[in-house]
Amino acid sequence: MTVRVGVIGAGWIGRDHIRRLTEIVTGAQVTAVTDIDAARAEVAAARVGARVCADGGELIAANDVDAVVVTSWGPTHAEHVLTAIAAGKPVFCEKPLATTAEDCLRIVEAEMTHGRRLVQVGFMRRYDQGYRQMKQVIDSGRIGEPLVVHCAHRNPTVPESYHSDMAALDSAVHEIDVLRWLLDDEIVSAQVVTPRSTSKRFAHLKDPQIMLFETAKGVRIDLEMFVNCQYGYDIQCETVGEEGLVRLPDPAAVGVRTAGQHSTVVLTDWVGRFVDAFDTEFREWIANLAAGVEPTGPSAWDGYAATVISNATVEARQSGRIVATDMKPRPAFYGGTA
Amino acid sequence: MTVRVGVIGAGWIGRDHIRRLTEIVTGAQVTAVTDIDAARAEVAAARVGARVCADGGELIAANDVDAVVVTSWGPTHAEHVLTAIAAGKPVFCEKPLATTAEDCLRIVEAEMTHGRRLVQVGFMRRYDQGYRQMKQVIDSGRIGEPLVVHCAHRNPTVPESYHSDMAALDSAVHEIDVLRWLLDDEIVSAQVVTPRSTSKRFAHLKDPQIMLFETAKGVRIDLEMFVNCQYGYDIQCETVGEEGLVRLPDPAAVGVRTAGQHSTVVLTDWVGRFVDAFDTEFREWIANLAAGVEPTGPSAWDGYAATVISNATVEARQSGRIVATDMKPRPAFYGGTA
Amino acid sequence: MTVRVGVIGAGWIGRDHIRRLTEIVTGAQVTAVTDIDAARAEVAAARVGARVCADGGELIAANDVDAVVVTSWGPTHAEHVLTAIAAGKPVFCEKPLATTAEDCLRIVEAEMTHGRRLVQVGFMRRYDQGYRQMKQVIDSGRIGEPLVVHCAHRNPTVPESYHSDMAALDSAVHEIDVLRWLLDDEIVSAQVVTPRSTSKRFAHLKDPQIMLFETAKGVRIDLEMFVNCQYGYDIQCETVGEEGLVRLPDPAAVGVRTAGQHSTVVLTDWVGRFVDAFDTEFREWIANLAAGVEPTGPSAWDGYAATVISNATVEARQSGRIVATDMKPRPAFYGGTA
Amino acid sequence: MTVRVGVIGAGWIGRDHIRRLTEIVTGAQVTAVTDIDAARAEVAAARVGARVCADGGELIAANDVDAVVVTSWGPTHAEHVLTAIAAGKPVFCEKPLATTAEDCLRIVEAEMTHGRRLVQVGFMRRYDQGYRQMKQVIDSGRIGEPLVVHCAHRNPTVPESYHSDMAALDSAVHEIDVLRWLLDDEIVSAQVVTPRSTSKRFAHLKDPQIMLFETAKGVRIDLEMFVNCQYGYDIQCETVGEEGLVRLPDPAAVGVRTAGQHSTVVLTDWVGRFVDAFDTEFREWIANLAAGVEPTGPSAWDGYAATVISNATVEARQSGRIVATDMKPRPAFYGGTA
Repeated sequence: MTVRVGVIGAGWIGRDHIRRLTEIVTGAQVTAVTDIDAARAEVAAARVGARVCADGGELIAANDVDAVVVTSWGPTHAEHVLTAIAAGKPVFCEKPLATTAEDCLRIVEAEMTHGRRLVQVGFMRRYDQGYRQMKQVIDSGRIGEPLVVHCAHRNPTVPESYHSDMAALDSAVHEIDVLRWLLDDEIVSAQVVTPRSTSKRFAHLKDPQIMLFETAKGVRIDLEMFVNCQYGYDIQCETVGEEGLVRLPDPAAVGVRTAGQHSTVVLTDWVGRFVDAFDTEFREWIANLAAGVEPTGPSAWDGYAATVISNATVEARQSGRIVATDMKPRPAFYGGTA
Repeated sequence: MTVRVGVIGAGWIGRDHIRRLTEIVTGAQVTAVTDIDAARAEVAAARVGARVCADGGELIAANDVDAVVVTSWGPTHAEHVLTAIAAGKPVFCEKPLATTAEDCLRIVEAEMTHGRRLVQVGFMRRYDQGYRQMKQVIDSGRIGEPLVVHCAHRNPTVPESYHSDMAALDSAVHEIDVLRWLLDDEIVSAQVVTPRSTSKRFAHLKDPQIMLFETAKGVRIDLEMFVNCQYGYDIQCETVGEEGLVRLPDPAAVGVRTAGQHSTVVLTDWVGRFVDAFDTEFREWIANLAAGVEPTGPSAWDGYAATVISNATVEARQSGRIVATDMKPRPAFYGGTA
Repeated sequence: MTVRVGVIGAGWIGRDHIRRLTEIVTGAQVTAVTDIDAARAEVAAARVGARVCADGGELIAANDVDAVVVTSWGPTHAEHVLTAIAAGKPVFCEKPLATTAEDCLRIVEAEMTHGRRLVQVGFMRRYDQGYRQMKQVIDSGRIGEPLVVHCAHRNPTVPESYHSDMAALDSAVHEIDVLRWLLDDEIVSAQVVTPRSTSKRFAHLKDPQIMLFETAKGVRIDLEMFVNCQYGYDIQCETVGEEGLVRLPDPAAVGVRTAGQHSTVVLTDWVGRFVDAFDTEFREWIANLAAGVEPTGPSAWDGYAATVISNATVEARQSGRIVATDMKPRPAFYGGTA
Repeated sequence: MTVRVGVIGAGWIGRDHIRRLTEIVTGAQVTAVTDIDAARAEVAAARVGARVCADGGELIAANDVDAVVVTSWGPTHAEHVLTAIAAGKPVFCEKPLATTAEDCLRIVEAEMTHGRRLVQVGFMRRYDQGYRQMKQVIDSGRIGEPLVVHCAHRNPTVPESYHSDMAALDSAVHEIDVLRWLLDDEIVSAQVVTPRSTSKRFAHLKDPQIMLFETAKGVRIDLEMFVNCQYGYDIQCETVGEEGLVRLPDPAAVGVRTAGQHSTVVLTDWVGRFVDAFDTEFREWIANLAAGVEPTGPSAWDGYAATVISNATVEARQSGRIVATDMKPRPAFYGGTA
């Protein structure tokens, strides 16, 4: 059975997911596309033989749409996700699930009222081989109980439109999600300290930022968030436990020796770093839909937690204080502990 | 347009390719399966909704078969490939193309008579990211003209049925193909020296073997072929040029520190090592078919060369002598130099 | 000319330096030893043909003592160093220079009054090949202006007598010194956050601790100080600049592949990690003395700074607050900026 | 007790050993120097307060010379070593012990007649930390019985005076010695295959050369000897056993990330690669002399074996044949098996 997918938002990431669902993932077909820019929707739809819908509501309601992908502008996510839930249709929403904790909670409540998970949020790192290996090592008990996690998230550059809050909201949110999952633990406070900013970029931007998180179990996380590091796209993560540690590998790359140097390439493109994770994310999402089981990826609750924690991180930076996250108790509906 | 594929041979590798064409590669559908063991064909076909054909001839002739995959027992390959060529149908043949140079040449001649490439041989290493990066480095001129290549090909164990000739015919044949492609060069002689054999395995088996190859351009290759190395499946390749070298990476894996050791996993399974290469191989094969262009993977001529060279390697080991390969001149039909 | 050295304190580190000055460093001879435990001094002296002095005063005054090494109990350092300065004799003092900032300042003032550097403090990491290479890279400008430094300092275990303050005073003090030197910068504040402590060790001990430092130039440093990490003695340091980063290597060790694992040894002994640094430290100290030039190693001012900063770190942990270091202006006498 | 050393030959390596015995190694003093170029001897001697002798004979006979270091031109080694043995004085001889097997045997016989080991040959790799770790791993049985060894020995460039035979006589002789010791085994045959030579250097020079050795126990060794590899001084060694492998590490060096590359320095200077090994070699030689025990380093028999095997390697290259080494039976006097 082919899963017929409608895509809301035909920007860069929307078009990439349309390509993925068409060329990479078996068992799926993009049947409908919509975008606030109708011409853009037209081009994206034509490329894969889909039709264009006037808006998200029409697309979600369409008979030839079994499941919805939301890749529109962040502030519109909540509305589309709520509409999909109301229609009883599975929905994959790129992060953020919603820009406010309140909207996230409305989604959580709507889904619980529906009685069955429909929502998956697009945190693709959980599908990365390295993080998955790390989780296996942690869960195996080989390194003992986790105590400390060191992370670095570096982009070569960002455009001038990128502002200081985005370091938490757009970038660190990936670590926030993946660490909650890795550790099976909840983040309860955030602090941000700021080195002097790199002179290579914009006066308006605090970059790098050092983010410090504490979890319910008492794990301490430090994250260097540096979006104009110049040299490459570089994701580091090391979890230190009571008896050992586990560290994310660098992507495999040939080693070259010339002129007194041994060198390997550092990626400069985040797409290359996580392309396999994106593919696996969608392959598993479609496989679950085809099998008629609930999604196993990041839930609406995870989307809520990520929004609460990233908002707290923004507040922590702006205020210079340690900010406790103010999260509701986790409903039994979502299982697990984090 | 979906490419409808018939698969001849439903053993382990045949079933894996059926799964791959069904679940991993978009744009393909397995419509027919045959096997010398009808029950085995039945099971494999049923799983993907294909029908069973009585034999390879019937399958190749079928109207709902656009392209053929040959994964039957090696000695039957030539017949099926020749039948497919006669039917004008594209055919993907697992290695070896044929067990004798003569049969390979019959295929080459049939294909040239047909006037257009129909045959692709299943040497998947050309699709491995590491080898592809290595080829880019070599072709870029960064390390200068290649002079020496060091290889190791190690399996943890092989079954008792594995005999000394298979080290060249079944195992080293992968290096033989990928090195011809990497270096854009032809292998002109082979020598084999044998250390004392490991005591861990069978008295009948010469293992490890050190294979030495010389190319037309004067490159020297050494290959340690060790199929009972116990510790893992480990593929090493280093090309040394006039100004530098390039080395295949180990697969990326998390590093773990416990109890006075830093360790990473070494794969013990060749499937895991080349699973992405297999997927890419079939994705590109199907994409070429869908686009109506000739296959871009290993050709019938490459299959011929691999058979000639691996046979020469067997003779070299048995005779203890350096054996010159006795290869026909390369037809212009196949382009390139190797 | 052989430099005749008197050693005050024949405990483990004192005896190791006596061995070093006798067997490893040319141009030096240990002529006198003293210790609060006379029998211990006797044994240590006899081994190298030195004589025993009744106390530090007698040793420092002795005609056959050209230079003094202080390896006695920390609280006695200041007195011995001041006596040596009063005698106009060069003195190498193991860290800490003194346990209070006031005593350190008395030494600084005494030395300035003397008018020439006599004091060197035993921070051996400045002599480690890895840190030296890192400093070369930073000073070369290759990575741009430093912005962030990540450190980890892990011991396999410590004895029960180790208490939470010692993480800063005895252990992190090495990073405090080497980072001031690496960055040519001063540390101006400290903060400590504490994960839940490892269950593997003592209830009285906060371990690990995450120490956060800020420098005058705005660099942010995080240091994981974990003295019961179980798995090994492991020193990590990574400096991130505006255009790149530089990372300390692990000690070179053979790689071994067996049973599905690639592994290298992690040292479990800090002596092995810095043995070459200790040797170089004393070789350079003696070479300077033999050449009649002032010591080029860590100065009394560096000793003062390390004491101020490590004391501030203790206060930061105890108070839970960010503590600004309260350091005097750097006298021109000591050159440099940090 | 200080060991008084006389040095015959004040060329580059002689002067470096004089410096080492003076500045690095405790317990030794260079008291006499001689050289065929008297002015050169004068300069070298003056620097360390030694006196100049007219020739080797005078130096060996001198009362203030307890032990002799021979670093003169290779063809003169045998004469000096034999004179030292006749005088009953310990002698450290840089490789080769002698240029012919016959001269080596004369030394062996003279030493056996003397009845006690006096001779140590300057193969410093046995003192390298990496090779020592490798030997520990092999001897521990962790990788099982050795079967194959892969080596590479690369220099960035050599002067025009370097000729093809020197690849075996001067360069590969280091691997020949260290492998006999590592494996506790004897080399029984040599073969050389030659890729086309690098165009970067001299027409007269076969470079690189692939040397293949077989041992008495049936181990196969391949050695890429490439003295104009351009990119660096690079020593690789990997021993593959029945259950695993062990590989020499690269020298520790900081990792740097800039501009899309992760890079570490490759040494371009062999002195830097083995400086610690040289220091340890002389430290242990002097310590043995001071302790009055026989030398524990490479023996006259090892010097003989290295000369026989490297000469066979030259013959193998010149003839294009596999050449069996023609070695006398190992006398019990030298213990061991290789």
